[in-house]
Amino acid sequence: MYSFNNDYSEGAHPKILEAITRTNLDQNSGYGTDGHCTRAREIIRREIGREDADIHFIVGGTQTNLITIGTALKPWQAVICVAQGHINVHETGAIEATGHKVLAMPGKDGKLTPADITQALNLHTDEHMVQPKMVYISNSTELGTQYSKAELEAIRSLCKEKDLYLFLDGARLGSALTSEVNDLTIKDIAALTDVFYIGGTKAGALFGEALVISHPDLKPDFRFMIKQRGALLAKGWLLGIQYEELFTDNLYYDLASHANAMADILRKGISGLGYSFAAPSLTNQLFPIFPDEVIETLQKDFVFSIQEKGTNGHSVIRLVTSWATKEDACRQFLDALKTCSM
Amino acid sequence: MYSFNNDYSEGAHPKILEAITRTNLDQNSGYGTDGHCTRAREIIRREIGREDADIHFIVGGTQTNLITIGTALKPWQAVICVAQGHINVHETGAIEATGHKVLAMPGKDGKLTPADITQALNLHTDEHMVQPKMVYISNSTELGTQYSKAELEAIRSLCKEKDLYLFLDGARLGSALTSEVNDLTIKDIAALTDVFYIGGTKAGALFGEALVISHPDLKPDFRFMIKQRGALLAKGWLLGIQYEELFTDNLYYDLASHANAMADILRKGISGLGYSFAAPSLTNQLFPIFPDEVIETLQKDFVFSIQEKGTNGHSVIRLVTSWATKEDACRQFLDALKTCSM
Amino acid sequence: MYSFNNDYSEGAHPKILEAITRTNLDQNSGYGTDGHCTRAREIIRREIGREDADIHFIVGGTQTNLITIGTALKPWQAVICVAQGHINVHETGAIEATGHKVLAMPGKDGKLTPADITQALNLHTDEHMVQPKMVYISNSTELGTQYSKAELEAIRSLCKEKDLYLFLDGARLGSALTSEVNDLTIKDIAALTDVFYIGGTKAGALFGEALVISHPDLKPDFRFMIKQRGALLAKGWLLGIQYEELFTDNLYYDLASHANAMADILRKGISGLGYSFAAPSLTNQLFPIFPDEVIETLQKDFVFSIQEKGTNGHSVIRLVTSWATKEDACRQFLDALKTCSM
Amino acid sequence: MYSFNNDYSEGAHPKILEAITRTNLDQNSGYGTDGHCTRAREIIRREIGREDADIHFIVGGTQTNLITIGTALKPWQAVICVAQGHINVHETGAIEATGHKVLAMPGKDGKLTPADITQALNLHTDEHMVQPKMVYISNSTELGTQYSKAELEAIRSLCKEKDLYLFLDGARLGSALTSEVNDLTIKDIAALTDVFYIGGTKAGALFGEALVISHPDLKPDFRFMIKQRGALLAKGWLLGIQYEELFTDNLYYDLASHANAMADILRKGISGLGYSFAAPSLTNQLFPIFPDEVIETLQKDFVFSIQEKGTNGHSVIRLVTSWATKEDACRQFLDALKTCSM
Repeated sequence: MYSFNNDYSEGAHPKILEAITRTNLDQNSGYGTDGHCTRAREIIRREIGREDADIHFIVGGTQTNLITIGTALKPWQAVICVAQGHINVHETGAIEATGHKVLAMPGKDGKLTPADITQALNLHTDEHMVQPKMVYISNSTELGTQYSKAELEAIRSLCKEKDLYLFLDGARLGSALTSEVNDLTIKDIAALTDVFYIGGTKAGALFGEALVISHPDLKPDFRFMIKQRGALLAKGWLLGIQYEELFTDNLYYDLASHANAMADILRKGISGLGYSFAAPSLTNQLFPIFPDEVIETLQKDFVFSIQEKGTNGHSVIRLVTSWATKEDACRQFLDALKTCSM
Repeated sequence: MYSFNNDYSEGAHPKILEAITRTNLDQNSGYGTDGHCTRAREIIRREIGREDADIHFIVGGTQTNLITIGTALKPWQAVICVAQGHINVHETGAIEATGHKVLAMPGKDGKLTPADITQALNLHTDEHMVQPKMVYISNSTELGTQYSKAELEAIRSLCKEKDLYLFLDGARLGSALTSEVNDLTIKDIAALTDVFYIGGTKAGALFGEALVISHPDLKPDFRFMIKQRGALLAKGWLLGIQYEELFTDNLYYDLASHANAMADILRKGISGLGYSFAAPSLTNQLFPIFPDEVIETLQKDFVFSIQEKGTNGHSVIRLVTSWATKEDACRQFLDALKTCSM
Repeated sequence: MYSFNNDYSEGAHPKILEAITRTNLDQNSGYGTDGHCTRAREIIRREIGREDADIHFIVGGTQTNLITIGTALKPWQAVICVAQGHINVHETGAIEATGHKVLAMPGKDGKLTPADITQALNLHTDEHMVQPKMVYISNSTELGTQYSKAELEAIRSLCKEKDLYLFLDGARLGSALTSEVNDLTIKDIAALTDVFYIGGTKAGALFGEALVISHPDLKPDFRFMIKQRGALLAKGWLLGIQYEELFTDNLYYDLASHANAMADILRKGISGLGYSFAAPSLTNQLFPIFPDEVIETLQKDFVFSIQEKGTNGHSVIRLVTSWATKEDACRQFLDALKTCSM
Repeated sequence: MYSFNNDYSEGAHPKILEAITRTNLDQNSGYGTDGHCTRAREIIRREIGREDADIHFIVGGTQTNLITIGTALKPWQAVICVAQGHINVHETGAIEATGHKVLAMPGKDGKLTPADITQALNLHTDEHMVQPKMVYISNSTELGTQYSKAELEAIRSLCKEKDLYLFLDGARLGSALTSEVNDLTIKDIAALTDVFYIGGTKAGALFGEALVISHPDLKPDFRFMIKQRGALLAKGWLLGIQYEELFTDNLYYDLASHANAMADILRKGISGLGYSFAAPSLTNQLFPIFPDEVIETLQKDFVFSIQEKGTNGHSVIRLVTSWATKEDACRQFLDALKTCSM
C-alpha cells in the first residue's frame, strides 16, 4: 500500500534529522529563546526581505491560526474566508472556540475574491452583527489552487482600503511558490500580507510553522498568546534547527519542487487517460474524478481520501504528493489506473 | 411618524404596568426565588402541559439563546440553524463568543428542513470538524413564516434519531400560535422540543423570555449559567409578575392575535394594490416588495426597515405589527401606499 | 418578616414607575437609541463634568463588569482586585468566562491598596504568566467601606504610571458619595477613573447601571460588545427614563442618603448595645458580630444573610438598608436585639 | 556555563532519536492513528494496569492541562489547586482562557491537602459562585515535593465523596516515582486518579505527554477537543515512537532515577555546606537559600533561576537536574559553592 493521503505521512528530510541529532546534547535555553531560533529568524527575515518582521515558530497550523486570529480580533470581530477554508471546515471550530465567527464566502476554485470580501462587508453593517476585521486566505488553497500576484494585490488593496488585516495561511506555501504558473515570490507574500506563515510540517520538517508578523498592531506581547494556548514549545530550538536547515541551500524550495514534480506526473498521466479534475490545481494536491469502481480497485494498493462522494457513480478523490513521494509510486498508480480504466 | 419598525417600540400592556406598580413596595427575595416567579412557573407548566419542566425567566432573547446553547454543548459541538436564524445573523456572534460554531443551512422560506439537518450531519464526520449536537429553529421565523405540526414533528423525529437537542426560539411564539394557518398548540411545542421559550419582549411585556427546559440533560445547575452570563435579574419578580399577567385571562394570546390582525389588514391591503411579498408570512412580520420611489415616499410618514436593497429599482421592506399597533395607523399606511402607487 | 437582606428587595422609587407609566405607549426606537437615553446621557455628562464621556445603560452589574473587562483586556491580560471583590467571588466566574484571570489581592477592609497592585505587578513578570492590565475597585466596597479621595488618587497615580486601566464598580456608588465621611464627588470619580458606573438597581431604579467610559481606548465599538453579551435591552428607553428621574431634583443622592441614614440608626443602636463589627463600614451595609443564639432569635422576625459562620459561638451577619428601608423596621430590629441581648 | 535552569535544556535520550531516525521514511497515518501510537498505548496500559484507560499523546503540558480541564468542566465549574500550581501561575491564564476559574488554595509545601479542598467547597455554596468540580495536583509538585500514598488516597477519597474529578499533572511523575521516599507505583497513580499524565518532555523525550483517562465521563469525543485546541500533532507517530522507547527496558524510570541521583549529590553537598532549603524536596528540583553575593558568584559559571528574591540579603534559587545532567557539573557546582562560601 502506498499512501497519497497527505503530505505528512513521512518524517523529515534527513538533513533535518541529522541537525537535530548533531546538536542533541547541547544545552539550550527554552521556549524559542535559543541561538538556533535567533539564527533561523535572521535567515528568514533576509529571505523575505523584511527586517522589521517578528517571527515565531509554532508546532502546528491549527495552533498558528487560532493564536493569530485570536490575537488580532476584538471579541466582536470576525474573519472572512472562503467556504473551503481550513479554519472554516477542518479545525473543529478552533476559531469559534476563541470566540470569533468565521464568515465563509463562496469564492472561486477555492480562492477568495475581492467581491466576496465586499459582500461580507456589505452584509455586516451595525452592532447587531459581527464586525469583519480580518481576511484569511491559504496559498496554495485547500483545493490546490493558488493566487496570482494580481489576485493577491487586489485583495491586499481592498483590505487596506477597508482596514482589514490580511492573513495568509502558508501551510503549503512552498507548493504554491514553486508551481509552474506561480508569479509570486516569498518577498511579495511578505510585502502583501499583514501576517503569514511558512509551513514546515507539510514541507519536509518533522513539524513547525514559521509565523511572520509585519503589521505593528499584531506584534506586542504575542508570546503571551502563544504560551497561553499551549503552543510555546519547551524545547523550542527543535523548531529553530529545522528552519535553519530548510532555508539553507534552497532546501525548502527544492522539496516543494519535488512534490510538485510528482503531482505533475500524476496529473498528466490522469489527464492522458481522459479523466477530468474537480479543481484546476497545479500544486501538490490533485482532485481527479473517477468512476466508483475504479476508485475501489485503486484502493487495494493505494491510500487516498474521498473528497466528495458522487451520486452518479463518479466521485472526487484527493491525491497529495510531498517532498518524500517516490516517482516509482506515481508510475505504479498510473499503471494501476490505466489497467482498471480499460 | 408612525413606526412599523419592530414589535418592541412601546412599553408594556397596561395590566402589566399596573401589576408592577401595585406590588412595587412589597419586599421580595431576589434572583427569581420569589413568589411571583413561583406562581408564574406554575401557571406556565399548566399551560404547556408539562409538570416536569424547569422554567427560568430571562430578560432578553440573545441572553436566552447564548445561555441555552452554551449550556447544552460541549466545547467542540455546534448548533445547526437556518441561514437567516437570529443566532446566525443578528446576535453579533453571541454563540461563537461562547465558543461554538453555528452551522447555517439554506432552509426554505426561513424554515429549517430535515434535509438541511441531514446535510449538516453528513458534512461533519470526524474529529477534524465540529460535531453538530443541537438544532435551533425560530417559530415564527425571522421571515415571519411558521412551522406546521407536521414540519415540527419531522424535525423532532430526526433529532431524536440523531441524538440532537431541539431548541425552539419563541421570541415571536405568540404570533405563530395565533396565526390563521397555525395547527400547533403550546402543548405541542412543549412536547416536541427539548427546550424552548415563550417570548415576552415582543408580546406585550416590558421585557422577558420564559425559558422552558424539558430535556433532563439541560436542567442541572442551569442557574449557575444564567448568573455567570449576567442574566440573573436582581429584582427577578419583575419577570414573574409579567408572566403572571400574560398567562391570566388569555392576555398573551389576545395580544398576539391583535398583532396578527393588524398584519392581516396590511397584508390584504398591500396585496390588493398588486404588490407581492418576499416571504409567505402570515404572522406579524411582512416583507413587501415596493418600488424605491414608493419606499421613499412612505418613509416620510412611517418608520420601517429596508430588508434588502434591490438592484432593479425595487426593494424589500419589513413591516412589523405588535400588540400595540393601532388599526388607524395601518389604514393610514395603506392610504399612503395607495396614493403613491397611482 | 422584614428583610435587611439586600438593597434590591423592593421595586423602584414611585417617581420612576410614574415616568415609565406616563410614557408607556409612546413609540421609541430600540436599543438605547431613543430620546430618553440621549437626555439621560446629557444629564449625567453634566453631573460628572465630562462632556467627552461615552455613556451606556446596561441592565445589571455582572453584565456591566464582564462587558467592560472583556472589552478592555487582550486575551492574556488580567484584572487585579481585592479578595472580596464582586468579580472575584459573586459572579460565578463571569470574568473568567470571558477568558481572563482575576488576580485577587488581600487588600485592607475590603479596599485594594497601591501595595496590592505593586505586588501583583511584581509577581507577573513574563509571558509565562498573565499580564495585569486593569485594576477593579468597588466604591462603596463589598464590605461597606469606601475610598477616600487620597486613596483613590494614589491608586489612580499608580495605574497611570504602570499603564493600567482603572475601573470603578459603582453598584453602590450613591451610598459611598453620601456617607458622612466621604470626601469624593462624582466629578472626582469621573476624573480619577478610566471607566466607572453609577448603579441604579440598588439605588431606587427597577434595574440599570450607567456605565461611563472616559478612556479613549475603551470607547470604540463598545455597543458591539453589549449586544454580543445579550445586554443591549430592546426597550432601552426604560433605562434612559430611570436615569432621567434619578438625576432630576437630586433624587439619586436623596435615596442614597436615606439608605445611609437608616444604616446609621442600626449602627449606632448596635454599637450602643455593645456589639462590634467585622468591617468599619459607614455606608448602607453593616457587618455586626452577634452570638449565634441572638442571630437565631433575630431570624424569627428579620431576614438577613450570614456573612461568616463563626466557630466560637459568634457569627458575622450582613444588614443592608436601602432607599426603601423603613425607619420603623430599624427601630424594631434594635428593640428585638435589645430584648434578646439581655 | 552549565545550566541547571530546568529539565528540558537538552534534546532526547539517544535511543529515542535513533528510533525516530530508523523509521523516518516509513509512511504512517496521521494524527495518532498509526501503529506506533497503538503499540505505545498498549505498553502503557499494561504498565499502569488499566486496560480500560483511554490514552492520548499530546505535545506539551499546558496543552494537556487546558484540554483536560476544558473538557471536564461545564462553563460554570472551577478547578481547585494549590497556590503554586502550574495552572495557577505559569500557564498565562490558559485555564481561564477556556472559561474556568482556578481556585488557588494555600496547601502545604506545594501540596494540596484535603483541608484545602474542604475549604474551597465550603466557600462555594450557591449559583452566585463558581462550582468546584475538579481537583488538580502535580506529582512531583512545583516545589519538588511529592505525595505519599496515604496523602493521595486521602485526596482521592474526598474527591469521590464530593463528586470531584481528580486530575494529576505528571509532567515530573518520573522524578516522584523514583524518589527515595516514594511509596506510590504508577499503578497506584492510575488507580487513584480520574485522569493523569506521564510527562515526556522533562523525562528524556524531545516532547510529549501521555494522557491517561480512566473516568468514563471524560472519554467521549476527547479527540475533538485535542484537535480544536491545535494539539493533534499531524505526525503523531513521533509521539508514539518516543513512548515506545521510554517504556521499553525501564528507560523512563532509569532516566528519572539519574535526575534524582544528580539532585541528591547537589542536595547533600549543599546541606553539607550548611545551607538550608525553602522546600523539603527529594526529587529533581531543589530550592536552596543562598546569600545574594554567593548567588552572583555562582551565576558566572552556572545558569539557574531565582525563585524568590529575598529582602534580607538571602534569596531562594531553583536548581533542576535531568536525565542529561552530568555528574561532573554537579561536582563543579559544589566546588564553586564551597569556594565562594569560605
